[in-house]
Amino acid sequence: MTGVAMNADAKKITLRMIPYGIYVLTVDDGAGNIGAATVNWVTQTAFAPPLLVVGVKADSGAYAVLKTAQRFVLNMLGKEHKGLAFTFFKPAALENGLISGQGFTRGANGAPILDAAIGAVECQVKTIVEQGDHHIVVAEVTEAHLRQPPAGRPDAAILEMKDLGDNVFYGG
Amino acid sequence: MTGVAMNADAKKITLRMIPYGIYVLTVDDGAGNIGAATVNWVTQTAFAPPLLVVGVKADSGAYAVLKTAQRFVLNMLGKEHKGLAFTFFKPAALENGLISGQGFTRGANGAPILDAAIGAVECQVKTIVEQGDHHIVVAEVTEAHLRQPPAGRPDAAILEMKDLGDNVFYGG
Repeated sequence: MTGVAMNADAKKITLRMIPYGIYVLTVDDGAGNIGAATVNWVTQTAFAPPLLVVGVKADSGAYAVLKTAQRFVLNMLGKEHKGLAFTFFKPAALENGLISGQGFTRGANGAPILDAAIGAVECQVKTIVEQGDHHIVVAEVTEAHLRQPPAGRPDAAILEMKDLGDNVFYGG
Repeated sequence: MTGVAMNADAKKITLRMIPYGIYVLTVDDGAGNIGAATVNWVTQTAFAPPLLVVGVKADSGAYAVLKTAQRFVLNMLGKEHKGLAFTFFKPAALENGLISGQGFTRGANGAPILDAAIGAVECQVKTIVEQGDHHIVVAEVTEAHLRQPPAGRPDAAILEMKDLGDNVFYGG
């Protein structure tokens, strides 16, 4: 079917039905290059081993560092972190021991864990599928960090795309 | 880090922070084999071409048909379709022109589109990453169908994991 015109409005609206959380992907290649970028195209894909997939913009700075580092941290943002989501839409800078103004510690894999995150998973890249304007990063979860267990469902605690504004979408 | 024990509770809870919609993946290999299964591990991964990833249980009947067919439909369920989500947790059966009791039409790619779905995308498999207990199906969206445009945000119209019950999860 590729190449056949499809219903563009239906494609946009149906793909925007997919709900997304908001995450900051952080990377450090150990050679002085760090990266941090807001991402939302995330899903778990296996229990054993615990795998997840992240769609990462192929021409982004964070992706370039990730390809070298082959490991990263996915920081889960909380409902109170709408501002942080927009902060990490911009290229990240390490200054005075802060990444774009945010304090962090290091995961066992060397990638930054944001102090503000409500949870974080350390990941090891297993496969990258280089198809499309964003590449598909398949990674195994090697460690996890939780600031404190959420009072309700974990998926009610995370910042979601729909929390960013009535007309904010990344997808479609 | 693989092989090093990680914090299992933190892993479970942080991975369950990922929000999910609920979909029925439908397939038909054109040789008499159909499949329909509730899935939730879905994300878009590129705009151009429009790609998405679905994590599909490697030992499921729907996956066996999908591997042969190399194309499928992802049906988006609406808030009113909680019962349908549970219906398609069970193996699907084609009887009297219905799939597990549900009426359907055919997409241009031959896969069933459930009458009850609020939206549906037709997909062509591009790559399958065979890692883990679920495999990673990378597919291009070739057509889209919308029953009617939702009144609000599209991601507010879809049935979500959290709508299925306080203790229902598939992930972690």
